Amino acid sequence: MGLLKDLDQTGVAEIGADLHRFAGELFPICRSITGDGVRQTLALIQGKVPLRITEVPTGTPVFDWTVPKEWNIRDAYIKAPDGKRVVDFQKCNLHVLSYSIPVHATLPLRELEPRLFTIPAHPDWIPNRTSYYKEDWGFCLSHHQKLALKDGEYEVCIDSSLEDGHLTLGEYYLPGRSTDEVLISTYTCHPSLANDNVSGLTIATFLAKLLSGRELRYSYRFLFNPATIGAITWLARNREAVSRIRHGLVVTCLGDAGGFHYKKSRRGDAEIDRAAAQVLRHCGEHFEILEYSPYGNDERQYCSPGFNLPVGSLMRSVWETFPEYHTSADNLDFIRPAQLAGSLRACAAILDVLEDNCCYRNENPYCEPQLGRRGLFRSTGGEAGGQASGEEMMARLWVLNLSDGNHSLLDIAERSGISFPKIKEAADLLYEKKLVSLVTHGSDGAQAPLVAPSGAA
Amino acid sequence: MGLLKDLDQTGVAEIGADLHRFAGELFPICRSITGDGVRQTLALIQGKVPLRITEVPTGTPVFDWTVPKEWNIRDAYIKAPDGKRVVDFQKCNLHVLSYSIPVHATLPLRELEPRLFTIPAHPDWIPNRTSYYKEDWGFCLSHHQKLALKDGEYEVCIDSSLEDGHLTLGEYYLPGRSTDEVLISTYTCHPSLANDNVSGLTIATFLAKLLSGRELRYSYRFLFNPATIGAITWLARNREAVSRIRHGLVVTCLGDAGGFHYKKSRRGDAEIDRAAAQVLRHCGEHFEILEYSPYGNDERQYCSPGFNLPVGSLMRSVWETFPEYHTSADNLDFIRPAQLAGSLRACAAILDVLEDNCCYRNENPYCEPQLGRRGLFRSTGGEAGGQASGEEMMARLWVLNLSDGNHSLLDIAERSGISFPKIKEAADLLYEKKLVSLVTHGSDGAQAPLVAPSGAA
Amino acid sequence: MGLLKDLDQTGVAEIGADLHRFAGELFPICRSITGDGVRQTLALIQGKVPLRITEVPTGTPVFDWTVPKEWNIRDAYIKAPDGKRVVDFQKCNLHVLSYSIPVHATLPLRELEPRLFTIPAHPDWIPNRTSYYKEDWGFCLSHHQKLALKDGEYEVCIDSSLEDGHLTLGEYYLPGRSTDEVLISTYTCHPSLANDNVSGLTIATFLAKLLSGRELRYSYRFLFNPATIGAITWLARNREAVSRIRHGLVVTCLGDAGGFHYKKSRRGDAEIDRAAAQVLRHCGEHFEILEYSPYGNDERQYCSPGFNLPVGSLMRSVWETFPEYHTSADNLDFIRPAQLAGSLRACAAILDVLEDNCCYRNENPYCEPQLGRRGLFRSTGGEAGGQASGEEMMARLWVLNLSDGNHSLLDIAERSGISFPKIKEAADLLYEKKLVSLVTHGSDGAQAPLVAPSGAA
Repeated sequence: MGLLKDLDQTGVAEIGADLHRFAGELFPICRSITGDGVRQTLALIQGKVPLRITEVPTGTPVFDWTVPKEWNIRDAYIKAPDGKRVVDFQKCNLHVLSYSIPVHATLPLRELEPRLFTIPAHPDWIPNRTSYYKEDWGFCLSHHQKLALKDGEYEVCIDSSLEDGHLTLGEYYLPGRSTDEVLISTYTCHPSLANDNVSGLTIATFLAKLLSGRELRYSYRFLFNPATIGAITWLARNREAVSRIRHGLVVTCLGDAGGFHYKKSRRGDAEIDRAAAQVLRHCGEHFEILEYSPYGNDERQYCSPGFNLPVGSLMRSVWETFPEYHTSADNLDFIRPAQLAGSLRACAAILDVLEDNCCYRNENPYCEPQLGRRGLFRSTGGEAGGQASGEEMMARLWVLNLSDGNHSLLDIAERSGISFPKIKEAADLLYEKKLVSLVTHGSDGAQAPLVAPSGAA
Repeated sequence: MGLLKDLDQTGVAEIGADLHRFAGELFPICRSITGDGVRQTLALIQGKVPLRITEVPTGTPVFDWTVPKEWNIRDAYIKAPDGKRVVDFQKCNLHVLSYSIPVHATLPLRELEPRLFTIPAHPDWIPNRTSYYKEDWGFCLSHHQKLALKDGEYEVCIDSSLEDGHLTLGEYYLPGRSTDEVLISTYTCHPSLANDNVSGLTIATFLAKLLSGRELRYSYRFLFNPATIGAITWLARNREAVSRIRHGLVVTCLGDAGGFHYKKSRRGDAEIDRAAAQVLRHCGEHFEILEYSPYGNDERQYCSPGFNLPVGSLMRSVWETFPEYHTSADNLDFIRPAQLAGSLRACAAILDVLEDNCCYRNENPYCEPQLGRRGLFRSTGGEAGGQASGEEMMARLWVLNLSDGNHSLLDIAERSGISFPKIKEAADLLYEKKLVSLVTHGSDGAQAPLVAPSGAA
Repeated sequence: MGLLKDLDQTGVAEIGADLHRFAGELFPICRSITGDGVRQTLALIQGKVPLRITEVPTGTPVFDWTVPKEWNIRDAYIKAPDGKRVVDFQKCNLHVLSYSIPVHATLPLRELEPRLFTIPAHPDWIPNRTSYYKEDWGFCLSHHQKLALKDGEYEVCIDSSLEDGHLTLGEYYLPGRSTDEVLISTYTCHPSLANDNVSGLTIATFLAKLLSGRELRYSYRFLFNPATIGAITWLARNREAVSRIRHGLVVTCLGDAGGFHYKKSRRGDAEIDRAAAQVLRHCGEHFEILEYSPYGNDERQYCSPGFNLPVGSLMRSVWETFPEYHTSADNLDFIRPAQLAGSLRACAAILDVLEDNCCYRNENPYCEPQLGRRGLFRSTGGEAGGQASGEEMMARLWVLNLSDGNHSLLDIAERSGISFPKIKEAADLLYEKKLVSLVTHGSDGAQAPLVAPSGAA
């Protein structure tokens, strides 16, 4: 489809800067699984692509779950016996246990202590903790802050509300030639955490923008929902759309300095799994392919046994495995422009594979066609290690050899060890020279495109 | 089924002592492929579990073979020229070539020598040799004994009989809910060899006792037959029972200090092969999985191409590979209580897998069920490496994720890397909470149990 | 079939000498893809086996190609300004760019230089270059020769002709019991290059001679055609014969000191692929199995998607990977008698596997047959590591165990790790003893042989 080519025309540095700038806009918002933080976040994304917002009332049953009350917060603090704010929500929204019920009280330090969360191993960092489904309240603070607290009476205030309201879903749908869908999913429910929330929002938004206005093979659906309950709610309300999902990707933690991790779908051999592995194999960065596990992000819901959708997850460092995870150290310095840009490139390259993964048929299947008279082969023969064994030549020979109608371009890239874009380029050239014809799209059953592939214009 | 749990209530030390004590009772008997030694052995086992004894007459055709004459022996010796017994069957029953025909003669040393078997590399050990199908006689002695023999006339006496009689088979059958059978097979034909006979008899006997009186999914058949000819005779006479064998295990050499070896069935991927590998992977001892080979113990007969039964073999050191094999050094010191107990535990764990390997169906297959409101999930979220990624939690998530009716608990244990008992425990808990229902037993086609699994009482 | 046994009766040294002698006869001829060099080469081969020669006229369409003009050459030289021949075709036929059009001219060195091919990295070697499908002329010379050329006017002469004529194909067909064919293919188009042409011609010729006059299971077709265009022409004109090819081997580069390389067919799991791997695994020389790639020798045509024939390629060093490739250093010293003989042995062993790869049925499939009373087993039992575990005994047990009608001898060799000849020997012995019967030939669907296998006479 050429997403990667387009991106590379702009240049990595510029894209990285744009991505990081948008991340910076999203970062300060106090998000949770419901409430105005989600709405503010979606409003910023709507500045880039037109979202459809859905509000689902508290109490709505969604599969085994129920849409919870809506939580909003205006202020929260702990005041020391001398009246000074020692913990202040206005300075960092991680300070409050997410979904804390309202409280305003004065109590001695020893009664407050069980409600204070810290990370002794990283005494400068503020943790992020939640209590979504058990009504509770508490504060998160740095261990140094806690150690500095002296005995005495403390005023605690959480000016929040937990009331009937709505869960807010954001969705962007891009129609393609086929109604078969590609799902890109990320989550909207974490407060000021850069890698473990803002990076995924940023990449998904820019990817959506990159696809906009294009002639697409697949239809695309971008979901910006709260994790777990949001995915569950969306799945419960969109059974028909779900049945059209052919490939899907959960994107998260895409800004840090770790190498790529792709977690396979429950199926383990879905086209998205192969496309992601193919792209990472040639991306020039360190990467690892992980088997599916039922613990993780929203792939848990998409890959639950009733759906078993072909949805994998692209990450850099894996959630929970890096020390900054769910702490104030997961901030805007932790995610870097170049890494965000590299992540966007990887996503674009994966979508390029999905869009371009077709089967061709060699029009001269008996023996090789004479490439020389078409200007596709060297004319002087005999050199050891010569031109003919170059990758470009090999890509042509592989496409010709495996284009029997049963091998997709992804199959050919995998078997040849040549990157997908080079295989695609060879196929386009051979198509242009009428040496191969287009049979049908990849293994997914999607219709053949109505227009010729890019190289055949 | 909980065999392992029951065993562990008694304690390894006590079980080991019991096993070694019984091994000590079996050890002194002079066994061969027929005769009273086999009968005395079966009588001792009958003290533990009620055997059915079958006597098959000499001359009975069994497939390509014929039941041989019955051999019995009362005494045997070599007397030196000075009239002293220099080799004495009463001291060690290995001294006589098994199945020796009767002889009483006086002959010079040089004529006797070809009939004397020793092990020069282990000059203190007495070998064990047999001549079942060629009528012959001879003596086995230590190499030091042989070197001490001086020229002269020696009186040799083997007070044996080789006459028409019977081959003796021992069998213990335990009916279960299904007529599908699990076969446990060991052999009764070796004289005083501790690891390479008595250990197998001991483990099989105690395993049979452990199963007695239980509510069983499968029916169990324990065979205590002479090796090769006994297995062949039993197979020839029990074609219908053979057709019901779903899983089988030949147990032998289970008392020595070597790590476990499991030799796969000819099929290579039978449920017993997977169950044994699963148990050994989590047993905490060194182990090795061996491919099937047509050389070995009675799995040769069970896995002959006409039967091709799913029968593997569990051992510690593999027969023939340890120097003590078929010598007087394979004695009661060579097998240790703790190792016998560990072997019984491994067998029990394997049977637990077979009994408990069911398929469940997730009753909330669309998205995850809300574990939190059922007390099956943490309530405060967000910690890196927190409780939710603990093995217990993961076992629940795996069972829920793979319980689509097509994955057995063994499949789930294999894919998750979590031990079978922990997967079973999770399944029981989820069953109790009505989050999963029981579909049917494993891949073997056995009927679903009439009662609920253990955790659902 | 016993090809290997027959070869080994003659002795490797003698065979190696014969092979190298014949290579020496073939070496001096100036071959190209058409012309009298090919005819002279085929005439020499006809001294060993009766070839059928086919002349295909210039201009004949063959698939996507056209038979080219016929090229012949009588002389070629470059004369220095002093009139001395500094490059002389009579001394080495590599000196002329193959398929050079006639030229006779005098021109200054700087105009000549673009037409001079050398190898700076190997300044003493003369390269070999071709220009088959673009009319051109040029000279190949050592880099030292070129450096010695002084400014001035040079007389160049290529006394060649490029005219309508014929492409010459050579073929030897040996009928067997089945019309199913084994294809052995090599090429005839390189001038004085020993490993990369003469070695293949030599091995194929001797292999054909070795097969002559034998009772054969398969029919054999040996092709001696120019590379690429010759294979294409033959394939275009022999569609019916092509449909009968069950196994095939392209032989090339079989005389050098490199270990064996077998390049698999496009199918990757064809019987020829397994037979070659089996033979190399036991050949005692270093070897490597290479995956199929669409670049290479005439397997490119045989494995084009329309044909997809089960044709692999046996080599020692792989074309293009050794520095001597397509240079004057690929001469008769570069190929050694012992290596040629080893290559012939490997080919013979591969054909032995194809001919002898049958399925047998164990006539006593229930339990083991009693080998002892047939003299096929030891009579005294009990020794650790004794005779029974010897390879001969194991081969018998494996054949009995896997002869269920579904496993061929090659399957058994692969699973047991025992070499094919030893498995075949065991099968012959068991057949003779009536313990196994012949079911049908291997996985290829060929008819069972009308006569008994070799050991059953």
